Amino acid sequence: MNPTLALCCELIERQSITPEDGACQTLMATRLEAIGFKSRPMPFGEVSNLWASRGSGGPTLVFAGHTDVVPTGPLEQWQSPPFTPTIRDGHLFGRGAADMKASLAAMITACERFVAAHPNHRGRIAFLITSDEEGPAHDGTVKVIEQLASEGEAIDWCVIGEPSSTAQLGDVIKNGRRGSQGARLTIFGKQGHIAYPHLADNPIHKALAALSSLIEQHWDEGNEFFPATQLQISNIHGGTGATNVIPGEVVVDFNLRYSSETTAQELEQKITALLDKFAIKYHIDWVRSGKPFLTRPGQLTHAVSNAVQKVCGIQPELSTSGGTSDGRFIAPYDIDVIELGPVNATIHQINECVAVEDVERLSLIYEQVLVELLA
Amino acid sequence: MNPTLALCCELIERQSITPEDGACQTLMATRLEAIGFKSRPMPFGEVSNLWASRGSGGPTLVFAGHTDVVPTGPLEQWQSPPFTPTIRDGHLFGRGAADMKASLAAMITACERFVAAHPNHRGRIAFLITSDEEGPAHDGTVKVIEQLASEGEAIDWCVIGEPSSTAQLGDVIKNGRRGSQGARLTIFGKQGHIAYPHLADNPIHKALAALSSLIEQHWDEGNEFFPATQLQISNIHGGTGATNVIPGEVVVDFNLRYSSETTAQELEQKITALLDKFAIKYHIDWVRSGKPFLTRPGQLTHAVSNAVQKVCGIQPELSTSGGTSDGRFIAPYDIDVIELGPVNATIHQINECVAVEDVERLSLIYEQVLVELLA
Repeated sequence: MNPTLALCCELIERQSITPEDGACQTLMATRLEAIGFKSRPMPFGEVSNLWASRGSGGPTLVFAGHTDVVPTGPLEQWQSPPFTPTIRDGHLFGRGAADMKASLAAMITACERFVAAHPNHRGRIAFLITSDEEGPAHDGTVKVIEQLASEGEAIDWCVIGEPSSTAQLGDVIKNGRRGSQGARLTIFGKQGHIAYPHLADNPIHKALAALSSLIEQHWDEGNEFFPATQLQISNIHGGTGATNVIPGEVVVDFNLRYSSETTAQELEQKITALLDKFAIKYHIDWVRSGKPFLTRPGQLTHAVSNAVQKVCGIQPELSTSGGTSDGRFIAPYDIDVIELGPVNATIHQINECVAVEDVERLSLIYEQVLVELLA
Repeated sequence: MNPTLALCCELIERQSITPEDGACQTLMATRLEAIGFKSRPMPFGEVSNLWASRGSGGPTLVFAGHTDVVPTGPLEQWQSPPFTPTIRDGHLFGRGAADMKASLAAMITACERFVAAHPNHRGRIAFLITSDEEGPAHDGTVKVIEQLASEGEAIDWCVIGEPSSTAQLGDVIKNGRRGSQGARLTIFGKQGHIAYPHLADNPIHKALAALSSLIEQHWDEGNEFFPATQLQISNIHGGTGATNVIPGEVVVDFNLRYSSETTAQELEQKITALLDKFAIKYHIDWVRSGKPFLTRPGQLTHAVSNAVQKVCGIQPELSTSGGTSDGRFIAPYDIDVIELGPVNATIHQINECVAVEDVERLSLIYEQVLVELLA
């Protein structure tokens, strides 16, 4: 078993359902300290965070990631126990195998080889690891990066180990993410008996036209890097349960994944203006859960693309699709952020796995990124 | 205290929260047997029902009603205990005072006076009393009338004691009711992550246009006796609770109160045709809870209007508005049905009451109906 695969198995064994870290960060810190890193636990609330760095002066490349994993789901559906790393059919199975303990292991062993070959590398290598990425994400990356910034810590590049690949390792690199804007909309009417609708005011009826206008709205065209902004309704609830009663209100949750062509503020204004066209009484609570960010093609994307090309023989696609990640907390500090990790086909699912050969190849990619940027 | 008020108090004391009868029917049967009625308990399931009749040959006038009452609600909000009949400010307070123990008492005392004056009246007087009107209404009037019909029992007219009056006793007589057609509509989509809407299929979005077409549909104009058919949505539920998940389905309850210009079958066909215009996968469960019925102006409405005119000095309005009643189960047997009872302002509420003077006046009205039809 190669060192990266062995370390990945050790990390999977350390059960770390969010926000638990399961002592994964201690293991990582020990390995990093052995090759000259200075490590600094930065806990906030019940969340474990680790900051570690080696070298001095600029530029600084940060490997970022999380040790926490999502819950297992029904244990009886797992072909092997989720916290017992098991190799079967060329794949390593276990909760967190793909998201993202293989990446963490690959980052460590990449540094071990790079530091051995380049003990006096230029600039700094650093790690920013949290145990709160799969949970509320309040006391993890967002707090650490804020603290580091307040201390004047300068970071140039960040590689996040999120599983970005779709069909094969390295085929997709995320160089940004859409923004995410949530809302809870309550539309008010007047409760009454269904046989006397003239004495009531049906909020469900009123909601239909207003919500139709929201889902039919064309927000923007997207741009070279982002798909067009999209609105989706996730929840709608109205009704007393009784089939002869018109309810007093209906509550709707919706979310926009938005491009860099617009802003949270602009979306809120447009939505309010749309709703105001209808004769409805409503209340809206906004949830701004992440601005869009974009790392334009440059030194970092070039280094990562080259590394993938050298190890995998393919040219990766730059993409901004998919869900949010901790990149949204790092990018605002004027740091170039990309995400590169294993194939994401099984993440968050029963029988999560990663191809055995990809674990070591990912380590080679990360090592090559170090060579390109800091050798 | 006059005999009608006294009997009403006795009935209120007999606690009879649906489907309990609280021995009210025994009391009524005893009084009726004393004036020559033959009584027949007709229990079905846990429901008490009473059929009683006096006389022979046609025509037959049935007084119909229910001894059960709705629950009291919070006891501490009652100014006097709900099952302790209490006279205050010219009103008799108690659960069931208006709906419909005053009517039951008035029917009994009206018969007592009428039989005393007309011992050899023509035709038959009958009572059809249930304890299941406020509940599921499965084992009450619907079963009794079915059984009587199967025995060849012929009924011409039916006066139901439902509280039909709005501002003053006798101002409104119900000579029919709209039909009631319910439906539970499930619209199916495909669950998925809100960041990848192209991999999901949002059933809430699909529901909006389909439901809009239902609420915008013009069903009919109503007619001389019925208001236009109306559709109201009572419940809509879709969503997993998570704000980042597109749900797999949305469930909607709606109800139509419909005029005699259409039928349940026609409505079902129209709704199915409307839904089929949309590219949606759906399932619909129909609940036919009552056909419309109408008693056209004739002998019965004439007799009841005359009786109100003589006792109250006002001309009652014929109306088909409002909720359903047990009349929907009786009218289909080709029986003329009208509803006449006290003012309904406080029914089903805390501190339900009936004006003391109306209790006796209602008895006089019912007596006059007997005179008009069977003297």
